[in-house]
Amino acid sequence: MSASKSRKATASEESLLRIFTVPEAPESTLSKIEQALSEDLEGFLSQSIVALEKPLHQVERDFRAFEIPDDPKFVSDYTEEMMQTLIAHSVHTAAPSFIGHMTSALPYFVLPLSKMMVGLNQNLVKIETSKAFTPLERQVLGMMHHLIYGERENFYQRWMHSANHSLGAFCSGGTVANITALWIARNRLLKADGDFAGVTEDGLLAGLRHYGWQDLAILVSERGHYSLGKAADLLGIGRKNIVAVATDANNRVDVTAMRETAQTLQQQGVRVMAIVGVAGTTETGNVDPLNELAELARELQCHFHVDAAWGGASLMSTKYRQLMAGIEHADSVTIDAHKQLYVPMGAGMVIFKDPELARAIVHHAEYILRRGSKDLGSQTLEGSRPGMAMLVHACLQIIGRQGYEILINNSLEKAHYFAELIKQHPDFELISEPELCLLTYRYVPQKVQQALNDAVQQQQWQKVAQINTLLDELTQTVQKAQREQGKSFVSRTRLQPAYYQRQSITVLRVVLANPLTTEQILKDVLSEQIAIAESKSHLLNQLAKLC
Amino acid sequence: MSASKSRKATASEESLLRIFTVPEAPESTLSKIEQALSEDLEGFLSQSIVALEKPLHQVERDFRAFEIPDDPKFVSDYTEEMMQTLIAHSVHTAAPSFIGHMTSALPYFVLPLSKMMVGLNQNLVKIETSKAFTPLERQVLGMMHHLIYGERENFYQRWMHSANHSLGAFCSGGTVANITALWIARNRLLKADGDFAGVTEDGLLAGLRHYGWQDLAILVSERGHYSLGKAADLLGIGRKNIVAVATDANNRVDVTAMRETAQTLQQQGVRVMAIVGVAGTTETGNVDPLNELAELARELQCHFHVDAAWGGASLMSTKYRQLMAGIEHADSVTIDAHKQLYVPMGAGMVIFKDPELARAIVHHAEYILRRGSKDLGSQTLEGSRPGMAMLVHACLQIIGRQGYEILINNSLEKAHYFAELIKQHPDFELISEPELCLLTYRYVPQKVQQALNDAVQQQQWQKVAQINTLLDELTQTVQKAQREQGKSFVSRTRLQPAYYQRQSITVLRVVLANPLTTEQILKDVLSEQIAIAESKSHLLNQLAKLC
Repeated sequence: MSASKSRKATASEESLLRIFTVPEAPESTLSKIEQALSEDLEGFLSQSIVALEKPLHQVERDFRAFEIPDDPKFVSDYTEEMMQTLIAHSVHTAAPSFIGHMTSALPYFVLPLSKMMVGLNQNLVKIETSKAFTPLERQVLGMMHHLIYGERENFYQRWMHSANHSLGAFCSGGTVANITALWIARNRLLKADGDFAGVTEDGLLAGLRHYGWQDLAILVSERGHYSLGKAADLLGIGRKNIVAVATDANNRVDVTAMRETAQTLQQQGVRVMAIVGVAGTTETGNVDPLNELAELARELQCHFHVDAAWGGASLMSTKYRQLMAGIEHADSVTIDAHKQLYVPMGAGMVIFKDPELARAIVHHAEYILRRGSKDLGSQTLEGSRPGMAMLVHACLQIIGRQGYEILINNSLEKAHYFAELIKQHPDFELISEPELCLLTYRYVPQKVQQALNDAVQQQQWQKVAQINTLLDELTQTVQKAQREQGKSFVSRTRLQPAYYQRQSITVLRVVLANPLTTEQILKDVLSEQIAIAESKSHLLNQLAKLC
Repeated sequence: MSASKSRKATASEESLLRIFTVPEAPESTLSKIEQALSEDLEGFLSQSIVALEKPLHQVERDFRAFEIPDDPKFVSDYTEEMMQTLIAHSVHTAAPSFIGHMTSALPYFVLPLSKMMVGLNQNLVKIETSKAFTPLERQVLGMMHHLIYGERENFYQRWMHSANHSLGAFCSGGTVANITALWIARNRLLKADGDFAGVTEDGLLAGLRHYGWQDLAILVSERGHYSLGKAADLLGIGRKNIVAVATDANNRVDVTAMRETAQTLQQQGVRVMAIVGVAGTTETGNVDPLNELAELARELQCHFHVDAAWGGASLMSTKYRQLMAGIEHADSVTIDAHKQLYVPMGAGMVIFKDPELARAIVHHAEYILRRGSKDLGSQTLEGSRPGMAMLVHACLQIIGRQGYEILINNSLEKAHYFAELIKQHPDFELISEPELCLLTYRYVPQKVQQALNDAVQQQQWQKVAQINTLLDELTQTVQKAQREQGKSFVSRTRLQPAYYQRQSITVLRVVLANPLTTEQILKDVLSEQIAIAESKSHLLNQLAKLC
């Protein structure tokens, strides 16, 4: 490999044509690495990614150059360099002990299929650059529609491949899916009427004037995903009009409070445009009471969107799908296949109950997306985009509904097991019980727990706050140190539990979706956290003084 | 392979864990296919994709099922099925004779690198799931910034890796890039002021009221991309406020007309929010006079965005980069790496002149994107997204600036060659000269050309229209038949040439970016079109009657 050091790549027409026509030789550095990756992905990742974390500012040193290099580079030289600078310092998201985010191990077959997808380089915006990929994507959307709404055969025969209809839209992820749903909701509400050509043509100001509303509002639980705020900003509705409604002790939205909020808003001339139900909150994995929300949406005659980016996959489980009861009343549903459907990053979907829903955002162009064409791009927020639907299609067929049932049930039951471990240990406090496979907790020495409970009983809220502030520092320290040690990873967030009178506290957050995570790994995660916490004597002493 | 027919896959915990841990065996169907693809991509695509087009409704039959199959499926069975139903009927976008859209052959090394990217499954929304991929993406954006703006070293040292700044945003494609640029423009114009908290918080209605404007407008050439209309819809500005300004005979926007339009709008109380310059129109590949547009934007004190999704790569060519003169005055620039930078589908970028620009759309969340973090997700429209920047990084390093210079220059010169072929042939009419590597033309028998010219000279516009209507049908027929024969592909669009008094006509559109397209292929494309056209005696007879 060091032979290349003495050579220098030169740019010539001949050498360039070679990179478009001649594959990497089997003995090349890149081919060897690819083979290692194909033969044992977990082994490759474990060996290539260094365990001990290098500070970010040091990593950045390797990415300081700001000029596009003038000279070309040999593929092998580039690959060797990237193994050291990029791969070594990326994140082992597939590790069974990486239980802090929603990224999991992947089924092996998606690797060669991804390569096929890239090699085919289809562009799903239009039939002319995708052909069979277009019906395939429509089928995936149809299958997800059936999973949620369970319409009959003739419904799918009629609409699944209809040029002017769509059962959903594929996109890069849940954020674009949520934005698309709310964009549709806004455009349907402010539709053309009399001399008003609709918000699409005339804009938001004209729309509000025409209908005589002061503002539009979107109601959602305080645990709603941050992408909803982004959508409100983008759509011109304003973040203040994403109205966050309080949740109960289980992080589920309080529908009575939401109804009251809606009434107050309507009295002020603010039109409720949409209600968003969360099916799997990002931070705690809870599901809003979807049936009650559907009823409220009917009362308010507004759009009902369900953000099931995380939780939607639970519909695959006959055992647990009742957790999502009511989702079938939603006008639109977001599901991310790159979360619990085990597809690689970049596969979001929004599903529409009514095949005509997306007409509210339809657009055309002369060179593509002509009227009557089956080009998918006429009803999506994105333009050109890759054939990711193929990977979702593959997972649905190869894993099958029964396979997902096992995966989903195991994840959920693993979360219950971990919650029990935490509850039984005297030095941990479980903050949120797992409803799906997410839970939150923190390390709190037994004596501190007693002192904290006593303070709560006696309503000494200042003392509670003092203890919680120190615990926040401890939790943050433990989370960071564990990440830096590189053996395992949990994430952290801030929650406002009712029990502490809604004081904001820092908690550890765990997502148990990786099928390879064992009970032993969970025990080790806790042991590591205890060891780190016990080494922070300065903080522990300060806490002891408050007991 | 047929052995599997007698087996049936079953869902069990054991079999599921296998698909997450055991790779495809080298003798498996999928491995064999992957190997064929690795050894000879062009051969694999040519052999696997059937040449003769199957009608779409027949392709759809294989994608009719609407229920997620209950039972799992063997990977080999699935792969065999997809080779027949999906791959065989996808589009050979890499074929050197596929010169109708902006999809080209890819350099070989992106295939193994893509597989590595998928295997690593990083999520670029946050450092915790991307680590070194974050500085790498920032470096790619920095390099593109330098390509456009050429700031000095200390500028990049200061801003490239700064937590609260960004030199651009990576996204799935040019549409999201354009939307992001206009979102920023809107938010900066309607910024917080006095008791108005800014459009982000208070919404568009409050913003327009506060500043006392009737509406916002975006000025762009009539050849602007359809994504701008989508952006105006999404942002609540309204499609009617994307004001299309006429172009000159070379499809470049008429800046004098734009200035007049702006004045009229401002007199009506409409604030011009942004001017968009097109650097490579989608349909004809022309570049607006960017210096003049920059001057107008300064006069109007509005945002100047350049949509260089297609043309931006020309900046790599010292020989031709002056075509883009003035782009360095743009506040934001869109460039698609999956077009002329030869990266696979899904790599768009918007570059910001001012590192503080993206603050107008910044957002935070508790569990990620915390204030002061270097998480890229706090300044992007999308949330979770894959590490595509790695592939751009690889192409920039391996091909190098000099390599791109050769590729870009060759494409442009090939377009000039093809234009000459068309002009020299008596039965073709060149409609738009190539400025970048795009051109448009149509088949018009010599006698019909004479009759058409005579009618134009004598201002017989009705006769011109009659002839053009028949020619439209002929052009459309030729384009469709050529596509269906499967040997080569050109696209078609509609243009309004000044020469025909802006009558709308259908034209053939060619994009010459594939390095493997030879002069012989171009000759064959014309021969095939002549043969098809000559077989349409019914249309030719009708045309002859008008001569």
